[in-house]
Amino acid sequence: MFGYDEVAEFVQREKPAVVAFVHAETSTGALQDPRPITKAARELDALTIADAVTSLGGVPVSVDEMDIDIAYSCSQKGLSCPPGLAPFTASRRAVERLNARKTPVPEWYLDLRLLGEYFDGHKYHHTASATLFYALHESLRLIHEEGLENRFARHRRAHHALLQGFEELGLRMHVAEGYRIPHLNTPRVPEGVDDLKVRKHLLEKDGIEIAGGFGPLAGKIFRIGMMGPMANEECVKMFLGRFGEALQAAA
Amino acid sequence: MFGYDEVAEFVQREKPAVVAFVHAETSTGALQDPRPITKAARELDALTIADAVTSLGGVPVSVDEMDIDIAYSCSQKGLSCPPGLAPFTASRRAVERLNARKTPVPEWYLDLRLLGEYFDGHKYHHTASATLFYALHESLRLIHEEGLENRFARHRRAHHALLQGFEELGLRMHVAEGYRIPHLNTPRVPEGVDDLKVRKHLLEKDGIEIAGGFGPLAGKIFRIGMMGPMANEECVKMFLGRFGEALQAAA
Repeated sequence: MFGYDEVAEFVQREKPAVVAFVHAETSTGALQDPRPITKAARELDALTIADAVTSLGGVPVSVDEMDIDIAYSCSQKGLSCPPGLAPFTASRRAVERLNARKTPVPEWYLDLRLLGEYFDGHKYHHTASATLFYALHESLRLIHEEGLENRFARHRRAHHALLQGFEELGLRMHVAEGYRIPHLNTPRVPEGVDDLKVRKHLLEKDGIEIAGGFGPLAGKIFRIGMMGPMANEECVKMFLGRFGEALQAAA
Repeated sequence: MFGYDEVAEFVQREKPAVVAFVHAETSTGALQDPRPITKAARELDALTIADAVTSLGGVPVSVDEMDIDIAYSCSQKGLSCPPGLAPFTASRRAVERLNARKTPVPEWYLDLRLLGEYFDGHKYHHTASATLFYALHESLRLIHEEGLENRFARHRRAHHALLQGFEELGLRMHVAEGYRIPHLNTPRVPEGVDDLKVRKHLLEKDGIEIAGGFGPLAGKIFRIGMMGPMANEECVKMFLGRFGEALQAAA
């Protein structure tokens, strides 16, 4: 979590051309408020890039209001579509910066200028995956039908039901209140419990896959995704029952 | 089309680390025999890279026998699967060259070493598109069921039926005999015929899409793909009837 002062101090000292940050951190379950970062970056005219891979579709990603220049995401998390696509947006400011480049982009595959010309429809770049586009279209249609606000509220309701269940199971959350991703919850593994055993039990007995922590958090947290159609109280209730059993079996 | 002498002379003069070539050229309809190129390249220990985008699944791509180090292709042509995947192969020699790199690969996304570790299953790189993998698996299953040799022979039969039809329509082929891609045929646009009119007629009246030439070949050739399940005499017969009508309408 970065506050304005911290980012401002960094930006003043390093004068970066770009400030990049992760909006919703999949490995910890922490949600970063973009505004303190983008405000500090803007004061020195740095571009801002948000990794919205886990946030899009679950919490607001209001790029203009949040003053984010570039955001990218994925299709298989909050949008609940098959994986394979990376939704992407760039502000006018970012495009101007791109167009002012003096050196060519070294990678044809990742050259945003060529991709922009392709997007505008006048210059071939690659063969797009029509199948995945249809899938994305359908997932966006479902989101539109539900309404963004309703969707966010549903994710929050599922989150609170999950939190209540964790409390009843005696679990503590890794991330402090106010900084949690509603649809990716990271309770701490209780003292003396082997997280691998819990996850194996869930997967093999109930066909439910949750993730463990990695790096410094290996064995310390569970990572429990509850996104898109799964973010509802019925799923939460079912999951909590099985999770409780798995914890007991592994204790 | 490159012969051995031509490539050998080039390789001796330029001493390239890598010789890359297009196996089946989509823009012209020409099939390049890889052997003269790879033989000359090997004599100077250059790696060989084959663009097998249009060839794989329609004609043999025997990388070992053809002495190709790296070949890449696509899923949506000869394999008849939805687009979005790029099948890829690298020889032991290419992998050794990669592992001997002194500078890191600048692009994380395209770093073959990271992709190799991901492929081996021990290090996460990206979320693969499971949907497309299932589709590719099914298309490979269908190819296996038919048998590669049968499949190639079927493409050749469709090709010869198409050639006969073109002759009856008075069309000449852009590519000389012996150098043609069986499943991507490029007859010349007859004198005085507007190729766009022909293609528009076919698309709007019959729902058949064929491509035109581009660059120096714009307006000069048609590019007619007949791949995978479409490479059969019934499709050819149907197509030739509609194509004849479209040519007549546009004359």
